Amino acid sequence: MSKVFVNIGLSLDGYMAPEGNQQYFRENLKLGPGGETGPVNDLLRSTTERIGANIMGKRMFDQGERAWPEEAPFHTPVYVLTHAKREPWARPGGTTFYFINDGPERALELARKSAGSRDIRIAGGADVIQQYLNMGVVDELEIALAPVLFGGGRRLFENLREPGSQFRIDKVLDGPAATHLRYVRQ
Amino acid sequence: MSKVFVNIGLSLDGYMAPEGNQQYFRENLKLGPGGETGPVNDLLRSTTERIGANIMGKRMFDQGERAWPEEAPFHTPVYVLTHAKREPWARPGGTTFYFINDGPERALELARKSAGSRDIRIAGGADVIQQYLNMGVVDELEIALAPVLFGGGRRLFENLREPGSQFRIDKVLDGPAATHLRYVRQ
Repeated sequence: MSKVFVNIGLSLDGYMAPEGNQQYFRENLKLGPGGETGPVNDLLRSTTERIGANIMGKRMFDQGERAWPEEAPFHTPVYVLTHAKREPWARPGGTTFYFINDGPERALELARKSAGSRDIRIAGGADVIQQYLNMGVVDELEIALAPVLFGGGRRLFENLREPGSQFRIDKVLDGPAATHLRYVRQ
Repeated sequence: MSKVFVNIGLSLDGYMAPEGNQQYFRENLKLGPGGETGPVNDLLRSTTERIGANIMGKRMFDQGERAWPEEAPFHTPVYVLTHAKREPWARPGGTTFYFINDGPERALELARKSAGSRDIRIAGGADVIQQYLNMGVVDELEIALAPVLFGGGRRLFENLREPGSQFRIDKVLDGPAATHLRYVRQ
């Protein structure tokens, strides 16, 4: 069955951090050549390629709608949690946005159907990830922990219900700009 | 010159976590034989042995005063930040508690004098560590990040002034119960 996973950048003090400058990230967002290569870039590529469906919140979608290239960088169905009604929006390159008004359970159900044997990424933002953590359905947590103290921002780990899911450390990849921590639900 | 460092256990969601069950920890607290051995235990031992002076808050001292064995587990001068006046309290085994009423700068000054070539640990709690982070004097941050979500507790990284110190990743030790992250101030 598809895995449900989160892959997110965090500051050392737990705030949501922007993506790095990996070559694959630049390529996918059509930011032109350049960017870092190496194990972190390979990890980003394999993470992206395992995704069969994405789920995100309305704010993340709204920001992306203005910023993504015409060929939106998902290449999968994307389920957007929103109260706004809107017809599906197909982009070149295989990304179709579906606007879901029936809550996170329903979005996950649809994502599972469309993902096939591939996996489902809870893309963000923080509040959407928190909802899925509280539903206990997040199988894998992947965190790129950057050695910076932001001192403010949006915390990923907040509003969590207790007792939550239990995780174990699966893998640690030590990069120069971030420590890539992978946790698997027990 | 002595390094000022923090060595602390955190949950994945950033709350202060209790110490693990390492053999050296048990030995130092006179909890009897047993406990884990291996690289994490070795790390704990070398961390403890580098300390020439400790600084802690009054709440941590109060809790410890009830819980520590008569031979308190520091074996160095310990500077306790407090408004309460009290004579120095010497324990068997080389721990002497000094009660400092003149603030964290003064405690650090005294700690530097007594530490010699060894290092100074800001032992806790969270609020005391935050004060020293905001003073920009913490040279090294050592975090044992446990794969648990507490959902509540006392956050280490809060009330931080911006811009704070900049850190780089120095070392990552991947243990089964926690990921030991070591950051050095740039």
